[in-house]
Amino acid sequence: MNKEFQEELATRTRQIEAVIEKYLPCEQGYQRTVIEAMNYSIQAGGKRLRPMLMWETYRMFGGRSEVIEPFMAAIEMIHTYSLVHDDLPAMDNDEYRRGKKTTHAQYGEAMGILAGDGLLNYAFETASRAFELEPGNGQIGKALRVLAQKAGVHGMLGGQCADVEGEGKPMSEEMLTFIYRLKTGALLEASMLIGAMLAGATNGEQAQVEQAAGELGLAFQIQDDILDVTSTTEELGKPVGSDEKNNKTTWVTLFGTEQAKQEVERLSRQSVERINTLVVKNEFLVSLMMELIHRKK
Amino acid sequence: MNKEFQEELATRTRQIEAVIEKYLPCEQGYQRTVIEAMNYSIQAGGKRLRPMLMWETYRMFGGRSEVIEPFMAAIEMIHTYSLVHDDLPAMDNDEYRRGKKTTHAQYGEAMGILAGDGLLNYAFETASRAFELEPGNGQIGKALRVLAQKAGVHGMLGGQCADVEGEGKPMSEEMLTFIYRLKTGALLEASMLIGAMLAGATNGEQAQVEQAAGELGLAFQIQDDILDVTSTTEELGKPVGSDEKNNKTTWVTLFGTEQAKQEVERLSRQSVERINTLVVKNEFLVSLMMELIHRKK
Repeated sequence: MNKEFQEELATRTRQIEAVIEKYLPCEQGYQRTVIEAMNYSIQAGGKRLRPMLMWETYRMFGGRSEVIEPFMAAIEMIHTYSLVHDDLPAMDNDEYRRGKKTTHAQYGEAMGILAGDGLLNYAFETASRAFELEPGNGQIGKALRVLAQKAGVHGMLGGQCADVEGEGKPMSEEMLTFIYRLKTGALLEASMLIGAMLAGATNGEQAQVEQAAGELGLAFQIQDDILDVTSTTEELGKPVGSDEKNNKTTWVTLFGTEQAKQEVERLSRQSVERINTLVVKNEFLVSLMMELIHRKK
Repeated sequence: MNKEFQEELATRTRQIEAVIEKYLPCEQGYQRTVIEAMNYSIQAGGKRLRPMLMWETYRMFGGRSEVIEPFMAAIEMIHTYSLVHDDLPAMDNDEYRRGKKTTHAQYGEAMGILAGDGLLNYAFETASRAFELEPGNGQIGKALRVLAQKAGVHGMLGGQCADVEGEGKPMSEEMLTFIYRLKTGALLEASMLIGAMLAGATNGEQAQVEQAAGELGLAFQIQDDILDVTSTTEELGKPVGSDEKNNKTTWVTLFGTEQAKQEVERLSRQSVERINTLVVKNEFLVSLMMELIHRKK
């Protein structure tokens, strides 16, 4: 990572943190505990990748209004709710995430469920504040629909379900691609597509952006599989080799490490090319995409 | 219940079932199981009270378009998701509801969590289809925001959380009213308010309708407390006396049965009066409200 990009990344991350902070609910009232649990989950950190992709795509197409902000906060809330519910005892049963106690480990299982529900619901409540910011903007309704579609049964949630169902069973390439495209890809698609939509990109541009985001998501997920076999526990900050231990079908178990690496190369080249052929440009976005795919952890 | 009202109620319920059915997701794809679990939960029955209140309020203010339909389906999905998650082992741990297995009892705990998430998410996806039906209608964005607010941490979910927190502790009238107004009242407010909004009611009319719905919700919930001590298990179709057994603070434990009955009377009279003072009329709606408050089960 070159120093200039690194500094820019740090600046933008700080700006995004401030946007998210602005839209968090106040910790007051008889329901204070669940709001604390919601904010605890969001403030546990993360790369803020989704709002960043959204914002950069929005900027690339000339967007300059704060109408994007509630959507940036909303997509991070949706990402966070999915982690909170994934960590529950009935799901992955994880006690720690990024070195901090998971929400249910900190607040109890009932509050873990309710905090996740609260975040998903608050995401839509937050996004719908955009109507107030720009009452006449017809793109907001469309963006809201994209947000719901990409998060739901035909998006992220659908991927999670197929993943839960496929556990411990042999899996075809088709099913694995389906899971990766939905579980990881769908929210990245929503991020970039909403950014493009709200900035007034044409339908053709929106389609390019959506496809690029889908390829980015797939490459990102395959890179995850590769790191699980090629990295060390120290480098990765979490145990490696867990896929093999859990008998999980991954891109690496299906095609081997070499072919997986080639697929990441192919997908990322294609994704970046799509973005580069657009008339508008955003160098930082392209660097960010490359960084995501070629990350070491 | 007089015969004419009963017949009308049956007809409208059938019409509402058809509307809900129309908006359910197709059971296909690798994520088919979760969609089945979502539809199973919705099709488990219920009075369809919330879409009915919404539709009748919409009609009362002269609404005639199908733009109300996605919102009718959406509010029933939100109500259903809240039941699915309430029944989970970490919450009320109920195996049966209305004589049918609860969602997690039928599909396992992980699918119970995901089906609830799926329904909440699909509610917003469904409601946002209204933008397509009437692209230029500025009320849709506002209605969507009301839906999210009334379902979320400052609405139904907030009430559920305060309820979970207050379990086994002594509770003040203020806190109990807060829980009832949010847990039960908020979705009824959303139902009637959205109906009024989408039909183009004035702000003053909207405020009256919202208040009437809030009073209706509170009366409805206090009536629940009364039935728990005055009804028999056969009449009610579920065990009576459970509040006392669980050491629950209710309106009856705070003020006694007689005063609780008087409060139901006062609230319902006030609620119906508000609706009756409006210029527009809907006799069926008023009968429905009276029936809800004076129900025997």
